[in-house]
Parts: sequence; C-alpha cells; structure tokens
Amino acid sequence: MTDDRDPSGATAGPSAAPPARDPPPSPAPPTTDRSFLDAALDERDAVGFVAVGDRRDADLRFLTRFEGSEDDCAYVRTLDADVLCAPRGHVARAARRFDGRVSSDRPGDHPGERAAAVLDGVVDAEQAAPRTVLVPSSIPHDAAVYLERAGYELRSTTAVADARATKTDGELDAVRAVQRAAVRATDRGERVLAAAETDDGDELRWGDAPLTAERLRRVVNAELARRGVDSAGNTVVAAGATGSESADEPIATDEPVRIDVAPREPHGYHGFRSRTVAVDSDGGWERRAYVAVEAALEAALDEVEPGADAADVRREAEAELTAFGFDPTGGSGEGDPGGDPIETGHGVGLSRRERPFLRAGETLDVGCVLAVAPGLTDPEHGSVRLGDLVVVTEAGYELVGDGTRSFAPQGRY
Amino acid sequence: MTDDRDPSGATAGPSAAPPARDPPPSPAPPTTDRSFLDAALDERDAVGFVAVGDRRDADLRFLTRFEGSEDDCAYVRTLDADVLCAPRGHVARAARRFDGRVSSDRPGDHPGERAAAVLDGVVDAEQAAPRTVLVPSSIPHDAAVYLERAGYELRSTTAVADARATKTDGELDAVRAVQRAAVRATDRGERVLAAAETDDGDELRWGDAPLTAERLRRVVNAELARRGVDSAGNTVVAAGATGSESADEPIATDEPVRIDVAPREPHGYHGFRSRTVAVDSDGGWERRAYVAVEAALEAALDEVEPGADAADVRREAEAELTAFGFDPTGGSGEGDPGGDPIETGHGVGLSRRERPFLRAGETLDVGCVLAVAPGLTDPEHGSVRLGDLVVVTEAGYELVGDGTRSFAPQGRY
Repeated sequence: MTDDRDPSGATAGPSAAPPARDPPPSPAPPTTDRSFLDAALDERDAVGFVAVGDRRDADLRFLTRFEGSEDDCAYVRTLDADVLCAPRGHVARAARRFDGRVSSDRPGDHPGERAAAVLDGVVDAEQAAPRTVLVPSSIPHDAAVYLERAGYELRSTTAVADARATKTDGELDAVRAVQRAAVRATDRGERVLAAAETDDGDELRWGDAPLTAERLRRVVNAELARRGVDSAGNTVVAAGATGSESADEPIATDEPVRIDVAPREPHGYHGFRSRTVAVDSDGGWERRAYVAVEAALEAALDEVEPGADAADVRREAEAELTAFGFDPTGGSGEGDPGGDPIETGHGVGLSRRERPFLRAGETLDVGCVLAVAPGLTDPEHGSVRLGDLVVVTEAGYELVGDGTRSFAPQGRY
Repeated sequence: MTDDRDPSGATAGPSAAPPARDPPPSPAPPTTDRSFLDAALDERDAVGFVAVGDRRDADLRFLTRFEGSEDDCAYVRTLDADVLCAPRGHVARAARRFDGRVSSDRPGDHPGERAAAVLDGVVDAEQAAPRTVLVPSSIPHDAAVYLERAGYELRSTTAVADARATKTDGELDAVRAVQRAAVRATDRGERVLAAAETDDGDELRWGDAPLTAERLRRVVNAELARRGVDSAGNTVVAAGATGSESADEPIATDEPVRIDVAPREPHGYHGFRSRTVAVDSDGGWERRAYVAVEAALEAALDEVEPGADAADVRREAEAELTAFGFDPTGGSGEGDPGGDPIETGHGVGLSRRERPFLRAGETLDVGCVLAVAPGLTDPEHGSVRLGDLVVVTEAGYELVGDGTRSFAPQGRY
C-alpha cells in the first residue's frame, strides 16, 4: 500500500506492478425491460415507437444497451417488432449487445428511412389514419421528416425518460461501481492538496513545481482511469475567484479548491461527487460558505424520501443558504462573469444530468438516483460545493459511496 | 526519468513529485470565423441560420466555442444577429467562451422558441414568404417544429460540416497537442506489453497478476489523463479472437493486441492512433495480417494529397489487403459475431469521426485532418490495425505525431 506515502497514488520502483491492487472489473451490463413501451403504445393508440440517435444518445443506449456509433442508429418497437437498425460496420457489435433483432438491411440509407421501412413491414397499410408513431421529442428532424413522409403521424412521448428515472438493481450496481471510483478520485485530489507544500509566499507547490488546478485535475482523472472509468470531460477543479482562467496559476493556500467529478463507467452510467477544501483557510468567506453549504446539504438530504416533491430538496437547500446570509441564486447574478448559480442537484444515470430534476412537478420515487450538491459562488472568493450521490429507498435514501467530508484536507489523513 | 524502468509510467517513492514532468498546458482555444454562414444565407436567399444542440453537439461547439450544457442551447445567425441562447445557469460561462452576444432572455423556454424569438426580432415580418431558415439536418425535431410554427420554412444546410472539414492553424494546434498524448499513451501500452512476463503457460503476467486487456486499457487511459486529455470512451484494447468478451482474460503471448485511442483535449479536438503488437507471435495469421495492413497503410497514405478523391484512399488500402490474400470487407461478413469490418479512415476534429469520409464525392483539401487506419479482423485470430493521423498540406500530407511502429513491442525499447 503506497497510498499512505505517495499522494499521487503512483506506486514505487521499477520492479513493482504498477496499478497493483486493481479494483474489481465492472459489474455485468444492465438489461432493459422494454415492455413499458407496449403500455405507452396502447395508451396512445399508436402503431409504433421509434428512437433515432448516435452514440451520444442516452435514450438509445438505454433501449438497446448498444454503445452506438458516430452514425445514427434507429430503434423500432411495435407489437410485432423489436428492431435495432445499426449502421454499416456496426452490425456484429450491435448484435452482441442488443437482445432484440439487429437489422443490417439498407445500412447506407438514412435511419429514418430504415425505421419507416420496418414499420411498413409490420403495420397494416390499410389501417385508418392516423397511424400514430411515438418518438422522443428531440428525435433528429431529418428522421422525423422521413417518418412523416412515409405516412406516420408523430407524437412525442416521455416514456423513455420516465423509465430511465428509476433504476433497476442492475443499473444500481453500475452506479455503485462508478461511484466507488468517484470517491477515490476526489479523495486522491484532497490527498495531493494535503501533501502540497507552501511556497515562500502563499502558493502551493507539489513536487518540484507549483500546484495548479490543471495539475490537480490530471491527478484526479488519472485515478479515475486507473479504476477503469472515464472522466467523461466532467471533472472540474476550480480554485479561487470564479470566472478567472486560472487553471495554470498556482493555487493559493487560503483559496477554496472545489473538485467535482461525474465519471462514466463502461456501461455508460455516471457517478457524482463534489468536495471543497482549503489548505490553510483564513476563515473568511470560504469558511462561512462551507458551513452554510454543509447545512444546506444536510437539509436537502433530509427531504429525500419516496413521494417527496423534488423541488422541496432544492428549496430546503436554498432556505438554509439564505438563513446563513447568502444569496443562493448566484451572488452577483447571471450575466456577470462567474455569476452562474450552482445547481442544487439532479438525477444521474446514463446522462450525467437527467430526471428527476429538482423542480415543480417532479416526484422522487424508489430507485431514483440523485446528486444532491448545493454550492455557493462568489466572483471574488471562488466557489464552495459539497455533493453526494443517493438512491431513493423505501426507508428514505441510501448514500452511494462515502459521505465523509472536511474543509481542511489534512484533517482526513 | 523513470520511463525507462517502470513501464506503467508511475514514478517512484514517497517523496517524488508524481507526474513530475508535466506536459505543456493546452494551446489557446481555437476561434471560429462564422462569416461562411453569411455566404450560405446569401446563396440560399435565407433570412437566418439556426443550430440547436447540447454539449454533445460538435456543430454548436464549433460555432460558439462554448462547451455546452446538458440542456440544449440555440445559436442564431442573421445579417444583423449573432446570438447564443444559453440555458439558465450557464449564461456567464457561455459569455466567457462565445464572442458574439449571449442571450439570457426566457432561459426556461425551449431553445427553439427562443431562436424563433431572436429571428422575429430582426427579420422583417412583412417580408414575403418563404422566410427561409437554414438548419443542420439533424436539428432536434421539437426545435424545428417551434421554428416552423413561428412561420419559418426550414432548409437543411451542410455549411457547418463543410466548414469543419478543413482546420485552421488554431485547430491544428489543438489536434497536434492531443495527438502527442495519443502517441505517448499507445507507446505506454506497448511498453507494458514489452515488460510483461510469460506465465508457465502462454499467458502474460504483469506485476503479480495476469495482464488482461482491461488492465492495459486502464494504463493507456491513465497516461492520457496524466497528459490532460480525456479518453472520451474511445480507447479500445482488443486481444485475441474478436467478438469474445475477453477483456478480463489474461492476454496470450502469441495474440495480436490492438490498441486504438481517439482522445479529446479540453477544447474538444480529437486525436487518433492505432497500433497492434504481439509479444511472441508464432508467425501465423497475425504476422501475415500485420504485413498486409502495413502495406495497406502505406498505400493509403500515398493517395493523400490536395484534390484527391477520398474514396481512393480507401480503395488503395483495400486493394493492398486483397493483394495479400485477405478480404477487407471483414472476413466472415456482417452479422457474424466479430464480423464488423474495420473502417479504413475518416476525418477527425471536434467529432472523433467526421468529414471527410473515405467515400465517393468527398475530396481531400488542404487542412483536412484524416485518420488513416486500415485493419483486418478474423473471428478466430483477432484483429490487426495500424493507424496514423495526417493533415493534408500543399505538398501532400504531414504526419501528426509519431509514425513509428513494430509488431514486436520489445523491438522498440
């Protein structure tokens, strides 16, 4: 165990096996029960459901478990069909993932055309209009036009987003796995801050160079990679005044350093964690903000239970921040550099941010995975945020990962 | 320099500064000259251009240089307007990136509605129909419907994809930076293979555990992270028979091990590199395939010059593979597990795969960045691929990064 000696997590010497204690491999890929679509078809008197998207489309990944391609795929569901139209060059890979039928017909045609052809093959052409097809509202416009030209009337459905909002046990296994890496990576970042030395002035050095936010970001991301998950471009290491482009400036000892991660594991599920520490706070804004944010996190978590109004989670956090004398809408307001408010939380899954959102009309159900992460930002002093990941359970919620936190990184080791 | 001793790239001991020799920070963010849109508007007699997309949309990133959000943004261009409608909570960050006007009006409304409102504010309502608006063909359908309901007639344009196909000097700086990391990461993977020991049987061990494709993938990705770039979920480490789910099985000494990376640097640009090695090939399929693929790579590169037909690059590579007795369309054909053919190449930029594609009708122009990466796959033996990144120049092409390669990883160190 070199962890206790070398804060970077690098292990020693030429003969050592480098990332020795490998974490366990990813859990089995989650599966999707797509029968909820049949209920949606029945309810809307629709002949089919179509989704079209590329590898960045979380709905399509949820429906097919295929990791996708740069070119769009189409997924078609009717009472008689359950088909993934995969692009040329991706058919065999798609067939290894998707448990329905993978079509390699007309792979060079537009996926909207291919989806229409699948529908034409199973939908009775004599059926009286309208022949309604359900689609996610953000389906690519060109695909929608192909379907409309083929005589189908499109209606948007939130059925897929609704289904994604509560997770199955298999999905929770994936979330727990990626969250373990999120915890270790943020811990690693704190450990480096704890081990950094103070310059003659008030700046941090690590090894033989100044410690910058960018160096810290790389350490955090390397730890994620070593644990088999991707940073997914989501890692934020922010030190000092918000809005300044200071990633390559040395971190000052009294600055709050915020580390946010939302990594993605190989099946596509995200974790989330946010921590803020200061190496040697002078007890000013950042200390007051930390205390307020900690209280806001606890107040927000207290609201998490099945049936709760998701907006209450946000409202309780904001009330706590206000009680401590802060303006949770972002201090100097939108439009000001550094003035973007910090979002209190949101659902997490195949998208790093998805339903439930903490707004009116959203309810927390058993199986929802939620990032709860209030924060404060100030143009002069920086930002402070604390965020954990929870899953809503019958009893309230279960913390995913590790909830320990402290403002001084040294306090933990 | 511990590189020569410890193949993982980890540096030694408790007192050492871990990722000591930090590579230089990213180059300055590239900028975009959006005046090509004015020419497109003029040519199509259109009143405006609208793009809508989230953080995964490369067109929107190109147009605005804003890294985006989970919620859709809208970009609107007319002769009088150059506006980014950013979602609530992202306005200040967008304003730091985008050099036009950032609108925070109606941030809770749909971006399609907001785009229509911007157009309504600058387009003369009395103007005779059709009031044509140009959009990328894959604009989200709900945004398109909002624009159509506001009285605009949509026409799709490829102007953005066309502009993205040739890179500016600023974009090339970003590509060169990420490609340096791609080279070092694939080299790191080879180095670990070179340092691995052979078990009693014919399997590789590294440190005190079997060397698996998954362990090797993690080493490669940690090296990318240390160099400040993201694996972007694109790293493939494939050993042995294709199609088998063998990432957690020990790698056999005679298996071809393919390492593909397409990392993304902080401004969003991708690199690309592919290498294949075998620790102790018995000279069978994989050796013959390697020789053929190497010849195909050279033949393909010979075709790269300004004005060339992009399809010729692919055709020359396939002709070479055929001359060596292989079937470049993927051996056992599509639909067979492991039967997906390997794509010979494609443009690289803000998308890991973008124009120019190596197909009829595409021409190579100065400034195109191209992955040239022929390969062969065989259900029984595995896959062999060699890929480099080039930029088309007046003189032909410039190799980005390092073109060295060898089938035996030991040969290099």
